[in-house]
Amino acid sequence: VEVDGIAHRTIWLTEDPGTVSIIDQRWLPHRFEIVPLRELDDGVRAIRDMLVRGAPLIGATAAWSLYLAAHRRVAAGQPIGQADLEEWADALLAARPTAINLAWAVHRCRRAVTRTGGPLADTPAETTLGRLRREAEAICNEDVDTNRAIGEHGLVLLRDAHARAPERPVNVLTHCNAGWLATVDWGTATAPIYLAHRAGIPVHVWVDETRPRNQGAQLTAWELGQAGVRHTVVVDNAGGHLMQRGQVDLCLVGTDRVTRRGDVCNKIGTYLKALAAYDNGVPFYVALPSSTIDWKSDDGIREIPIEERSPEEVSHVQGIVGGAVCAAGITPPASPCHNPAFDVTPARLVTGLITERGVVAADTHALAERFDRVAAADGPSP
Amino acid sequence: VEVDGIAHRTIWLTEDPGTVSIIDQRWLPHRFEIVPLRELDDGVRAIRDMLVRGAPLIGATAAWSLYLAAHRRVAAGQPIGQADLEEWADALLAARPTAINLAWAVHRCRRAVTRTGGPLADTPAETTLGRLRREAEAICNEDVDTNRAIGEHGLVLLRDAHARAPERPVNVLTHCNAGWLATVDWGTATAPIYLAHRAGIPVHVWVDETRPRNQGAQLTAWELGQAGVRHTVVVDNAGGHLMQRGQVDLCLVGTDRVTRRGDVCNKIGTYLKALAAYDNGVPFYVALPSSTIDWKSDDGIREIPIEERSPEEVSHVQGIVGGAVCAAGITPPASPCHNPAFDVTPARLVTGLITERGVVAADTHALAERFDRVAAADGPSP
Repeated sequence: VEVDGIAHRTIWLTEDPGTVSIIDQRWLPHRFEIVPLRELDDGVRAIRDMLVRGAPLIGATAAWSLYLAAHRRVAAGQPIGQADLEEWADALLAARPTAINLAWAVHRCRRAVTRTGGPLADTPAETTLGRLRREAEAICNEDVDTNRAIGEHGLVLLRDAHARAPERPVNVLTHCNAGWLATVDWGTATAPIYLAHRAGIPVHVWVDETRPRNQGAQLTAWELGQAGVRHTVVVDNAGGHLMQRGQVDLCLVGTDRVTRRGDVCNKIGTYLKALAAYDNGVPFYVALPSSTIDWKSDDGIREIPIEERSPEEVSHVQGIVGGAVCAAGITPPASPCHNPAFDVTPARLVTGLITERGVVAADTHALAERFDRVAAADGPSP
Repeated sequence: VEVDGIAHRTIWLTEDPGTVSIIDQRWLPHRFEIVPLRELDDGVRAIRDMLVRGAPLIGATAAWSLYLAAHRRVAAGQPIGQADLEEWADALLAARPTAINLAWAVHRCRRAVTRTGGPLADTPAETTLGRLRREAEAICNEDVDTNRAIGEHGLVLLRDAHARAPERPVNVLTHCNAGWLATVDWGTATAPIYLAHRAGIPVHVWVDETRPRNQGAQLTAWELGQAGVRHTVVVDNAGGHLMQRGQVDLCLVGTDRVTRRGDVCNKIGTYLKALAAYDNGVPFYVALPSSTIDWKSDDGIREIPIEERSPEEVSHVQGIVGGAVCAAGITPPASPCHNPAFDVTPARLVTGLITERGVVAADTHALAERFDRVAAADGPSP
């Protein structure tokens, strides 16, 4: 996606092979800042403190963080053993407990450097470094390809919606940011929107603010604006009303984790929009790379641990006052706040999962059939 | 309710009979400011600019505004004719289009001064003034009595919930502010909570932030805190998740207008909470004085006009930064915002309406039966 007319990915290896660049998303839309990562801890902090967020980008950042850890060892002439790799992996896995892509990317990189069979210490550190670099690059390129494929499959849905009411734009409601900024490029939920926009299909996006961190108002609105896509910001409370009044043709959101039966864990509040969509006959689609599917989980409400974040995200709102980005206090200081970050939308409320292999029904059988090999390789089949 | 240990109503005639005092609710919880109203325009502005809000308090403010308009005429030795009364009424009715209590209170005051039959100009202005004063006082006192009665009926529900799980507090979720601050005293949705608290029933309230104006985070949390009631502020997105996890025993909200079949118009986002309650088997109660029932409306979604407020309420959040109350910008300046202020919860999602005459099912027959005389007096019966 372009920023001020320049095409960007959200993470990239710079000309200096010891530096990976990311966009510090904490200051958008108020400031556009590129930040260098030079070691493992930079990556852990970027994930934990949410300089980067979004399941696919978290995975990509984890992969590049392992590369950076290895790069410093090689630069210092030190070896890389199995214990090092495990220590790095553990540090990354602890940074955000809910994101399945984080575990997936770390696991994949670990496999890439150990699949030769012998102990890692027997492999020259330079070889391990090269393997980690190729794996990080592959994860990023595959993410771009995956999102492009999700976009093509979702485009069909938008094209159909447009054909049903060609006299007006297709109205899409989205929650949080499952956009370009949440991935390496294109986004998941936004990929069909960007492709439709490029194909000349008129699209208008209702952007949920997405309290407490306002990823919709801050990130989705900003990236849609950069791309020239028509959009309107609404508070999270408004979506049900818009659907009651026929002002939403379809909902399109991303996800952090989908269980094998199709329960969808996504940003807190997604469940409420899915209920409203169901109640009003509005299709509710979830866009995801299949790496987001957790084949080991079945009942999302019982099995998925929900991250609780700082109460200060509720008691304060980040915004700009007189040119300065600051946190405004909005609650009485004596009132406690509670901040669950995700909720689970049961599969029964989901019209379809838009994956890189097409639109799949949110049920055990359909998912297992479409992703048979993945199911067999990564965990017990249902 | 007490503020810093001093019992307050939210509106009162001062020792100077030309001045009515209100609390300027725009600066809570950051500042507690009492503001004098001295003429009709002060009252219109207080309603329009939301120094006061909440259906019952808007009604009370309208009644006192008519009194103040009459008081100035009398003080200037001028007469009060029918045209004056209509002009004052029109100015008040235009201040907030959705609140049925506004029209109800204005209509009631108009009737109080014209029921003698002859032209208003034949009545001495002092007599009209006296009637307006008595009517405003009656509206306020009846509101307090009504809310107290709502509280007693709702208390039974909280007592029952406590009896079912005596080992923990009763968890109530509320949206917006249907509290003391929205009425003359007690509140509607909060009246059962305050009475339960005084009766020693342990209650904990989940307070929805209620974007865009944050009446929950700013007002409900503040007044519950003043009264010593346990509460926790959550973002509007969190309620569905809390209900999924069994952390809500019942929902309890207020309303701005209820149709004769029991559709509930309330702060935007109420509908989403009602959907989640229904989906999780959590009782969803609406507390209201019967003056809130609009006997002329049936289908709330089709018939109730929804107020659209300024987009700046979405693009900016009011909060406190370094001791100063300010509006923080949270959206990209180029992104448009849309701000519908209310939504409609269909009667099928409402467990019961807690009124001053008891808990009534949200359906045409039950409502008509319970309020037979009111239905006959104020509009066409269903």
